[in-house]
Amino acid sequence: MSDPSDFTPSSDFTDIPAASSVDIDMQHVSALRAAIAAGDGSVLRRLLSEEHPAELADRFEQLSADERVLLVELAPDVISPSLLAELEDEVVEDILPLLEPGQISKAMEELDSDDAIQIFEELPKNRRAQVLADLPAQDRKEIEDGFAFDGETAGRLMQREFVAAPDFWSVGQTIDHMRMQHKQGAGNLPDKFFDIYVVDAHFHPLGYVPLSTLMRLESDQILRDIMDTNLTVIKPDLDQEDVAYLFEKFDLISAPVLDADGRLSGMITVDDIVEIIQDEHTEDMLALAGVNEAGLVDTVWSTVGARAPWLFVNLLTAIGASLVIALFQDEIEQLVALAVLLPIVASMGGNTGTQALTVAIRALATRDLTSANRMRVIRREALAALVNGVIFAMVLGAITLVWFGQPKLALVIGAALVFNLFCAGLAGILVPLGLKKIGADPAVASSVFVTTVTDVIGFLAFLGLASIFLL
Amino acid sequence: MSDPSDFTPSSDFTDIPAASSVDIDMQHVSALRAAIAAGDGSVLRRLLSEEHPAELADRFEQLSADERVLLVELAPDVISPSLLAELEDEVVEDILPLLEPGQISKAMEELDSDDAIQIFEELPKNRRAQVLADLPAQDRKEIEDGFAFDGETAGRLMQREFVAAPDFWSVGQTIDHMRMQHKQGAGNLPDKFFDIYVVDAHFHPLGYVPLSTLMRLESDQILRDIMDTNLTVIKPDLDQEDVAYLFEKFDLISAPVLDADGRLSGMITVDDIVEIIQDEHTEDMLALAGVNEAGLVDTVWSTVGARAPWLFVNLLTAIGASLVIALFQDEIEQLVALAVLLPIVASMGGNTGTQALTVAIRALATRDLTSANRMRVIRREALAALVNGVIFAMVLGAITLVWFGQPKLALVIGAALVFNLFCAGLAGILVPLGLKKIGADPAVASSVFVTTVTDVIGFLAFLGLASIFLL
Repeated sequence: MSDPSDFTPSSDFTDIPAASSVDIDMQHVSALRAAIAAGDGSVLRRLLSEEHPAELADRFEQLSADERVLLVELAPDVISPSLLAELEDEVVEDILPLLEPGQISKAMEELDSDDAIQIFEELPKNRRAQVLADLPAQDRKEIEDGFAFDGETAGRLMQREFVAAPDFWSVGQTIDHMRMQHKQGAGNLPDKFFDIYVVDAHFHPLGYVPLSTLMRLESDQILRDIMDTNLTVIKPDLDQEDVAYLFEKFDLISAPVLDADGRLSGMITVDDIVEIIQDEHTEDMLALAGVNEAGLVDTVWSTVGARAPWLFVNLLTAIGASLVIALFQDEIEQLVALAVLLPIVASMGGNTGTQALTVAIRALATRDLTSANRMRVIRREALAALVNGVIFAMVLGAITLVWFGQPKLALVIGAALVFNLFCAGLAGILVPLGLKKIGADPAVASSVFVTTVTDVIGFLAFLGLASIFLL
Repeated sequence: MSDPSDFTPSSDFTDIPAASSVDIDMQHVSALRAAIAAGDGSVLRRLLSEEHPAELADRFEQLSADERVLLVELAPDVISPSLLAELEDEVVEDILPLLEPGQISKAMEELDSDDAIQIFEELPKNRRAQVLADLPAQDRKEIEDGFAFDGETAGRLMQREFVAAPDFWSVGQTIDHMRMQHKQGAGNLPDKFFDIYVVDAHFHPLGYVPLSTLMRLESDQILRDIMDTNLTVIKPDLDQEDVAYLFEKFDLISAPVLDADGRLSGMITVDDIVEIIQDEHTEDMLALAGVNEAGLVDTVWSTVGARAPWLFVNLLTAIGASLVIALFQDEIEQLVALAVLLPIVASMGGNTGTQALTVAIRALATRDLTSANRMRVIRREALAALVNGVIFAMVLGAITLVWFGQPKLALVIGAALVFNLFCAGLAGILVPLGLKKIGADPAVASSVFVTTVTDVIGFLAFLGLASIFLL
């Protein structure tokens, strides 16, 4: 840590930055709205010129889709390259058709290649050729190369700009090289980088030197002697979720991507990874809730479309469960208390299953649940559900006894609850493990599976035991 | 990008690193298990000495709690400071009691202060004084200062080691300063850093210079002229969730933490933020599923303890809903089809509510849902639920007609479904917004609220309409 006493006073700066706010400035959003309504392009330009592009992007995203369109039509020049890079994909998709091809290609030229590709992805297919044609040859090639990789892979994610140095260079040579590259042209170095990749004569990576190491060592030190050979390298076809896992596990700030011959071809940085972690998490949560997609700019119709398919699946499974009840219509007519208590058995089972399922899906996502501890976790879930089954069987049994005054009914509902909760705990862990095993996403559809199991078993156990022992 | 043709061949390196694997090496885990079973400390030392500490931590965490204890007892020296820093908190908590106080304080001394505090947090209270006493005075003070802040705040999270430089220094002076600091003692500089904070004479931050900028500029350039004044500064009492939000929003790699007087007092780096984002995700998902806590080392009893409280709440609400059914026992006796169809209405409502709820909670977490678009989102959710209600009312009505041959029953269940889905959509958005408004975590308890609403309204609407129009 640097000691303040090292420094001699320079001047009386008093312009201390206030601690950054975590809230979006709603007054600013209102001002934007007013300017849009008034059709005042110059006010819009002033409002959207001073602040950090991330701040502007946040406010821009608060506007309705119609307001955003009006804004861009009034003042298309406020959509700077850095603002485009900060906006969410779906918002970019909405506004790109409103911009001139020249403005888009200029933005792509200015940005690092990973950001440029993200913008290109949102461009309508029929406008891509024209934007590509406007790009300088090297930028065009980078976009085309990136597009050759599948979406959501390391190859699509990486930027082509990185810094590599041969292992026999000294610290001083390396720093001089970067200064020279910078002088020759602003685009030669990435906007931001954190590690120097050390390579052999064939451009194969041997290790890396963090900039903070390069900074502290004498200039005659040789990279070969100071590099960290514990280098995490990434294949271009690796899924982005796995890339994120490697970053988390090894606390990476950047990582090199290799081509098929093991040569350095790109770099992925941690700021992109933070976004991916958020996206993957949204995907998991929505999948668990049976929502196909959700975003900022959803209309009523896209919302209906994202949710109706899973509601339809739920309707089918619910009808399946009610067919079980239909088998016992005579019993219910004889003892209507069964119909009253039925939802409780099903609801407790559904809850227990969802608990186990959610814990399992999270543990699979964080790779805490593996083949090495699978059996232990299955046993734990089954036993915990059984214990809860016994506890709540006693509680619900007692309540049923007081409520309906029938000891046999209390015993039957208790037994049904124990059995249903045990099955719910097992289904909650086995369903996601099974989906994972067959290569499916364990978060998708598992919720429907598990609640179907708990509904059917709950109804069958309760009504079945009742028909045997009560009637 | 550096061109490979810049480099002259050095030697024929062929030791290309293979792309890093995203899977835990289970053979290695088995080897660990065998060595533990055989009580062979020297094999354990060999197995736990070569690889990256993050890799070792992953394998170590795959062992059962008993195996971990045996391992540490056989070879306590394998628990290196870097391994301790990589292990999950709950595993650290388990093994610290097995280590000598001297080993713990030595590890804390070696690590950066944020990692040292994380380890100290897991230490049993009665051993803290002794470990603190073994630390050098400055390290001890850093731990005590960090502990003065609440858990899960920026102050607890930050490390005391960072690099600051006065605004009138040149690039060359700044690099020389770092080299000097490094020579004077390895602990003077943070292990890793990415930005230089530029300060005035009072140690107030004025801006920052990323190392990658420092690297590319000539040594006579002055920091004042090259610094980025768009600096995100953090207050020590800021909640870690808000810290993570700032990092995401501004793509930060590091950020300075200020004390009450606005002076630099610490630094937070992005690798810690990635962990926090994961923790907050886990918290949200478990809260939605009604699980209080879940971890790697859970026993059956801790699992029961984490889930029983929410099952109890669910039991109470389910009984509440079944009291509604009990009001209509006569109707059910007259028309047992009501009991058969009842769970379908409730299940469709529960699903619709959960969909809206999950989307809302995620949008609140990512700050996409704010006061500026709240009304739009509420309207969208209500309308989308209504549309789905109409669609599925027609489907379920048709099925009911075919199944039971009673047109009136089909109309009644259709009307109940429309009403219940509309209420479910509204509850799904209003409950989390309401919890947020009163300062509660919108993920906790909202699921129980919403399904209670959908159960009660579903039962009431279906049975109520049936009693009016059918019987």
